[in-house]
Amino acid sequence: MDSRNLQLTKEIIGKTLGQSGEDSLNSLGKELRILLSQKKLPKEPWTDLMIQSVLTDLAMMDSNNFTSRAGVGEREGRIFSSIVQHRHFYFSHGIGRSGEISAIQPKAAGSSLMAILTNTFAKHALKISGIRKVDCMVVPMATGMSISLAMLALKPQRPQAKYVVWTRIDQKTCLKCIYTIGLQAIVVEPELKGDAIVTGDVLNAIERVPIDEILCVLSTTSCFAPREPDDIERISAICKEKGIPHIVNNAYGLQCHKICGKISNSIRNGRVDAIVQSTDKNFMVPVGGAVIACPSSEFLKSISSTYPGRASGAPILDLFVTFLSMGEAGYQRILRERRSLVPIFKQRLSEFARSFGERLLESQNNTISYAISLDHFPNPTAIGSSLFLRRVSGTRVITPQSSKSVCGISFNSYGASYSNYPLAYITAACAVGLSPQEVDLFFERLSQVLRDSRAAY
Amino acid sequence: MDSRNLQLTKEIIGKTLGQSGEDSLNSLGKELRILLSQKKLPKEPWTDLMIQSVLTDLAMMDSNNFTSRAGVGEREGRIFSSIVQHRHFYFSHGIGRSGEISAIQPKAAGSSLMAILTNTFAKHALKISGIRKVDCMVVPMATGMSISLAMLALKPQRPQAKYVVWTRIDQKTCLKCIYTIGLQAIVVEPELKGDAIVTGDVLNAIERVPIDEILCVLSTTSCFAPREPDDIERISAICKEKGIPHIVNNAYGLQCHKICGKISNSIRNGRVDAIVQSTDKNFMVPVGGAVIACPSSEFLKSISSTYPGRASGAPILDLFVTFLSMGEAGYQRILRERRSLVPIFKQRLSEFARSFGERLLESQNNTISYAISLDHFPNPTAIGSSLFLRRVSGTRVITPQSSKSVCGISFNSYGASYSNYPLAYITAACAVGLSPQEVDLFFERLSQVLRDSRAAY
Amino acid sequence: MDSRNLQLTKEIIGKTLGQSGEDSLNSLGKELRILLSQKKLPKEPWTDLMIQSVLTDLAMMDSNNFTSRAGVGEREGRIFSSIVQHRHFYFSHGIGRSGEISAIQPKAAGSSLMAILTNTFAKHALKISGIRKVDCMVVPMATGMSISLAMLALKPQRPQAKYVVWTRIDQKTCLKCIYTIGLQAIVVEPELKGDAIVTGDVLNAIERVPIDEILCVLSTTSCFAPREPDDIERISAICKEKGIPHIVNNAYGLQCHKICGKISNSIRNGRVDAIVQSTDKNFMVPVGGAVIACPSSEFLKSISSTYPGRASGAPILDLFVTFLSMGEAGYQRILRERRSLVPIFKQRLSEFARSFGERLLESQNNTISYAISLDHFPNPTAIGSSLFLRRVSGTRVITPQSSKSVCGISFNSYGASYSNYPLAYITAACAVGLSPQEVDLFFERLSQVLRDSRAAY
Amino acid sequence: MDSRNLQLTKEIIGKTLGQSGEDSLNSLGKELRILLSQKKLPKEPWTDLMIQSVLTDLAMMDSNNFTSRAGVGEREGRIFSSIVQHRHFYFSHGIGRSGEISAIQPKAAGSSLMAILTNTFAKHALKISGIRKVDCMVVPMATGMSISLAMLALKPQRPQAKYVVWTRIDQKTCLKCIYTIGLQAIVVEPELKGDAIVTGDVLNAIERVPIDEILCVLSTTSCFAPREPDDIERISAICKEKGIPHIVNNAYGLQCHKICGKISNSIRNGRVDAIVQSTDKNFMVPVGGAVIACPSSEFLKSISSTYPGRASGAPILDLFVTFLSMGEAGYQRILRERRSLVPIFKQRLSEFARSFGERLLESQNNTISYAISLDHFPNPTAIGSSLFLRRVSGTRVITPQSSKSVCGISFNSYGASYSNYPLAYITAACAVGLSPQEVDLFFERLSQVLRDSRAAY
Repeated sequence: MDSRNLQLTKEIIGKTLGQSGEDSLNSLGKELRILLSQKKLPKEPWTDLMIQSVLTDLAMMDSNNFTSRAGVGEREGRIFSSIVQHRHFYFSHGIGRSGEISAIQPKAAGSSLMAILTNTFAKHALKISGIRKVDCMVVPMATGMSISLAMLALKPQRPQAKYVVWTRIDQKTCLKCIYTIGLQAIVVEPELKGDAIVTGDVLNAIERVPIDEILCVLSTTSCFAPREPDDIERISAICKEKGIPHIVNNAYGLQCHKICGKISNSIRNGRVDAIVQSTDKNFMVPVGGAVIACPSSEFLKSISSTYPGRASGAPILDLFVTFLSMGEAGYQRILRERRSLVPIFKQRLSEFARSFGERLLESQNNTISYAISLDHFPNPTAIGSSLFLRRVSGTRVITPQSSKSVCGISFNSYGASYSNYPLAYITAACAVGLSPQEVDLFFERLSQVLRDSRAAY
Repeated sequence: MDSRNLQLTKEIIGKTLGQSGEDSLNSLGKELRILLSQKKLPKEPWTDLMIQSVLTDLAMMDSNNFTSRAGVGEREGRIFSSIVQHRHFYFSHGIGRSGEISAIQPKAAGSSLMAILTNTFAKHALKISGIRKVDCMVVPMATGMSISLAMLALKPQRPQAKYVVWTRIDQKTCLKCIYTIGLQAIVVEPELKGDAIVTGDVLNAIERVPIDEILCVLSTTSCFAPREPDDIERISAICKEKGIPHIVNNAYGLQCHKICGKISNSIRNGRVDAIVQSTDKNFMVPVGGAVIACPSSEFLKSISSTYPGRASGAPILDLFVTFLSMGEAGYQRILRERRSLVPIFKQRLSEFARSFGERLLESQNNTISYAISLDHFPNPTAIGSSLFLRRVSGTRVITPQSSKSVCGISFNSYGASYSNYPLAYITAACAVGLSPQEVDLFFERLSQVLRDSRAAY
Repeated sequence: MDSRNLQLTKEIIGKTLGQSGEDSLNSLGKELRILLSQKKLPKEPWTDLMIQSVLTDLAMMDSNNFTSRAGVGEREGRIFSSIVQHRHFYFSHGIGRSGEISAIQPKAAGSSLMAILTNTFAKHALKISGIRKVDCMVVPMATGMSISLAMLALKPQRPQAKYVVWTRIDQKTCLKCIYTIGLQAIVVEPELKGDAIVTGDVLNAIERVPIDEILCVLSTTSCFAPREPDDIERISAICKEKGIPHIVNNAYGLQCHKICGKISNSIRNGRVDAIVQSTDKNFMVPVGGAVIACPSSEFLKSISSTYPGRASGAPILDLFVTFLSMGEAGYQRILRERRSLVPIFKQRLSEFARSFGERLLESQNNTISYAISLDHFPNPTAIGSSLFLRRVSGTRVITPQSSKSVCGISFNSYGASYSNYPLAYITAACAVGLSPQEVDLFFERLSQVLRDSRAAY
Repeated sequence: MDSRNLQLTKEIIGKTLGQSGEDSLNSLGKELRILLSQKKLPKEPWTDLMIQSVLTDLAMMDSNNFTSRAGVGEREGRIFSSIVQHRHFYFSHGIGRSGEISAIQPKAAGSSLMAILTNTFAKHALKISGIRKVDCMVVPMATGMSISLAMLALKPQRPQAKYVVWTRIDQKTCLKCIYTIGLQAIVVEPELKGDAIVTGDVLNAIERVPIDEILCVLSTTSCFAPREPDDIERISAICKEKGIPHIVNNAYGLQCHKICGKISNSIRNGRVDAIVQSTDKNFMVPVGGAVIACPSSEFLKSISSTYPGRASGAPILDLFVTFLSMGEAGYQRILRERRSLVPIFKQRLSEFARSFGERLLESQNNTISYAISLDHFPNPTAIGSSLFLRRVSGTRVITPQSSKSVCGISFNSYGASYSNYPLAYITAACAVGLSPQEVDLFFERLSQVLRDSRAAY
């Protein structure tokens, strides 16, 4: 409400009352001013009403919402269903334009502003998590496709490149994102160190082919135990020395300070070209977005201009709302809550394992995922599905026998990220958003399932 | 409400009244049954409440909404903001899984069902529009990226391929989607035929390089006048003869029966591998989705399995809701409304042009976009921005002087899709969703702007 | 967004694009300015986004939404459920204060402004319908309770009053609203004039008791055929002459120009103290509100101050939103649509009746409800329920036999508003919002039911 | 989704996945079954999605949502604005029918079921709070009007009644609800006992007029300190002995176990006819509803049938949603949270007062509102408005000088509920929903204001 309307309002409801309303609107204006000038997460969470207010203003700035407009193009942001219109808060132009996914859209001032702010908020969130000295953008693609996009942007720099040096991690997407764009993986088999599976000999892999045929090294920081995050400090040092680009798959690593610290070190001392993280796994939004961060703004811009055309604005809107709704304080809180749950989770898991004659597999550097052996269970694979039937989701049971072919490559002990891992085991993650009640439920049901499993034999 | 709950309801509110409620729920159940068994657009539009009801049921089937569940994975579909949760109707798992974008998701029964139905509804919509004998899937990417994906899926079949034969169309995305994935375009310059710009010599272009170095031909059916839709019947015949894949960029062609008829003919008599259309431009949803249609289900499956990982479910949800909200009748209606507006629009435009001493440029086969000459205006480029200031969006002004470099290729008369087009002109589209009121506004303001433009000199 | 924030916005997204957004926000500001200065329905409908925007601003002005507030009272507008909060657009203080239901609320500037505007919009709507020279307020009570309230406000003026002279209308509420507050009705039995039931001898009824024992005359303008609207011009003349207050139950009369014209005449020439109309029946909002209109602002204020305490703001919000969403043009349109459906409806009903050997009962002055005889049907009462089972709602079947006791008074032919009406009949209304499709459905099913009814005998 | 649709679903997405969805739907069905059979608050909170699901089912059962219906009545539940439709979850028929506000509505099975359940949930909530042996109903009117309605329902039992014996409580509504319906108050002036203001001589007041001229005694249990809740055990004993009805204004007393215990005792040993409580103050919903509870179901039914006509369903829907969203556990929790905040609040207030040379006024039996003296402040009234400017709402400053006339009666020290209370003081409440953060803010700002106030002199 502008000042003339506030004046009219006072004439209707009286000066004093009108003033109290104006004060509140001014407070909101001030909060927005802080946002627009600092371009950071607000210190404190915004209320839903404040968020609604800014969304409404931004939507009004998009051309599809101009009153008495005439749209005679082929793409005018018209929405058929009022349900759809309402759920998108009247935004419809998506993000980007033909030239660049992070370009400002001439038809959509509000959407453009939102996209830019979401990027700067994400940068702030990365900093809070411990990743410094990067520029970033939020893209409406999940982690896998985002890694592919970053690789495509590397292509013109390395026209001979055919290979990606890839430290084995047994999640299909991580390999597929290489083959999708017509490249091949040089697999670096990890090594066993105690129970833990750690980064293998990257240097050796690099030397297998001419260096200009290698597009980049793709390392991974967040993974299922007992695999540990890759030793990216070492990898980035090698990449720097050899002049090879380095992309870090940091899918859900933002929740771990240790990982983020190592990323910052790697940026400072070695070579990192892009770090890709999932928005859903780190920020609790629906699947469909990723944050691509780059130490070089220029390379970030290449990635942005690699994308052909426009894209859905939905994942950006989700993150924008979530960032406002969290504020810096809220984001710190969920990180802190996870951190304080970790030792308890680990301790309980360890004791639990012992009570069944099993043990927690040691993988010190993995602070998100934990694994306990299932050495004395006749049919470990049945345990996962029994748990799912009891509404425990997210566990994975791996046995030495499982083998699989992905993108034409055969893997033994698929799931373990290591051929011939000696034990069967089950993993569980202490991820952001996990509640203590869920932990209780998990142990209760796991206990039941394991007892049943033993009893069956 | 199941039968036992209905029984209890009757005990509370009485048999007769309870029965009237039960009847209504049964009617809804029956409508849903038709949907699930026929997998087609409903004959008549569904009400918002009916849609809400089915969304609620489907959401309840996704594991993130199970009551008393324990999620101990790294991706559990948790949503931080209640605004975000609500706007996604409690869906959060997106679509696809690592293997395939159209795969069923083990954690999300409801989302999976929705994705499958949306695909079959899209197939039905394509059939209504006139494209028969195809299978299709809806992807959460806009047209450009979807074309890139289809090309990536062709790659393994044609390992030597480096080129795409591309009939020039001056929209950046259409060229970028080739270069993004590391390929190069062999440009087929169109020909001038009267005022119209028509498909050039595709055969000659094909013969410029060894045939196995050509990935495919990329033709375009929907474009700004005076360029006409490509002669895809001829192109598909050539592709069939030469054994070259053929991808059709049918961005907003579903609204035109003529184009769709030609696509069907091309499928029947020639070679078409994939047809890509925008969801926003054809079905009035927010930007961010495309329908990829293929005569071969097998190739469609390859495209689906080319995508690495999961993706946003938002564009699918939008389309699902919109399809229910339209029904077959509603979709027919918007097609019909456009069709009946076309002759009026064209006629008014022609008369309007004459009144300014200009003329409608003849491009018979383009029934969506229309152009009128601006031959007697000293500064045509200013006209577009003047119109935008008056809230007329979607027009484009092209002059012979404009040249541009895209993906390293220089184009003269950029925008005209033809080097050295002799005239300046302005385009306007009679696209789906355009209202008669907008048409009136458009002419009123165009008239004002043109008068002002003349007066200024 | 205030000017400083717009400035910052321009620094982020560029001047030109920022300006286009600012222009749109300014347009909205201007529309709001017109609203706040003219206090009338907007000429044209507001879009949902514009409505959302004004609701957001108003909500922000209420103290329950102040940021960093401390509420240490017993009523602080806290909302437990986010569903509830969201559905009320964050309003929670209701309307009114202990002194007066239309008083400004010191804790709720936005709610207060909304309530005042809704009153002035209602006044404008009444004027459009044809009722002039009144002041009015919207109350969150349905018609019956609103009439009671108006009567309670008359009480202090007429301390001896025990009776209300009431022209018989067979809807329970119309009688109950008298007895609820401890008064008794003097029933004026209507008269039969052809098929029509018209106002009886009011004067005679008035003379039955000492005049100061009569609180008021309660007349009714909207009723089921064949009863006609009361002859309120005559009644108001009598009331003026005798010095007796006159309340008009105009429940759904706003949709009829004829009725409203007679009300205006009655105000000008006779005595009318209050006219009460339902919000749901006239303006298509959920049940629960009424507009109380009074020629004397002073008496309106008495009614307002009669109400003890606060009340729900929900019906006011509904009406505020609906008025904006209709605009003057939309309200005119729905009135016009009904008006143009009336002759068709009447004609079809008449022909339909004839085809079954029955007839349309003549009640010329009732332009909303219509009745056809059911003289040759053995079991007319079954027809109503058969229709309801076929999803035809709103018809009423009346037979001469039905008698009933309400508030201790026995009525013959209850439902007909006339003892011993000679015929059985069925009524149907051509009310605001009725669609031509519904009319078709109605006749189709009525035909079916009547045929079945005959066939059964 | 019924079993046949689940079968079809399994054919589409596979048996196992379909089964997991079915299980979740069945769980919801089971929760609903418990609700419908026990008619109590659910043990645990329902999620928003579960609530959405039941609302959708219920809405579908109302006739305005029947598909292919033909509404030819004057009230068909049509909604003009999609915003309004959506915010009411497609309910539009309100509650009640002409005969009775709690009657089942023949056109609205779902709304009727919701209204009945809300009543039984409220009964359960009252029991949890400590009021047993009552039946109750939720009405869409705030406390004042609800008390008036209860009195109106007493009227036919006591035709001679003109007076209500009323223990003075200085909130306008509490007196107005008597005068609104044409009765007069016999004021029982409270007595001073230390700092506290306690119930005066009710017996004496009763004896001032013939007993059949007294409609009832109206006592009050929740009030601003230093007035204490009325000694309703004594009053109810007197009422029993004298055969006079007794209505308890328990506006926000449900949050206090002590008050509710006394109400239960009064019911058991004395006479209580109706207890009226606000929904917003006790259950954190928007203003506009009340729970009327009666030991006699028959009298409750009289109240229900006193109301003329239909009424808004909005407050019932709000409460229904809130009850599901709280569950028994949630309601217990908010009661417990308040209870545990009380001693802290009181202690801090007392220390705070001492630090300014003032004191906490002792009113032992009032556990919600607290008062501290402002004996050494030159201008106490300015303190309240200074606080409001600092966004502290809900405090009240009372001085001995304030006097006021309400409903024609003059009161000294108005606000204190006692003529000539010796001190100025300020009150603050520790009410349900108050957060510890607000308490901190309150003391911080009060401190600032008091310091400023002293400094100013």
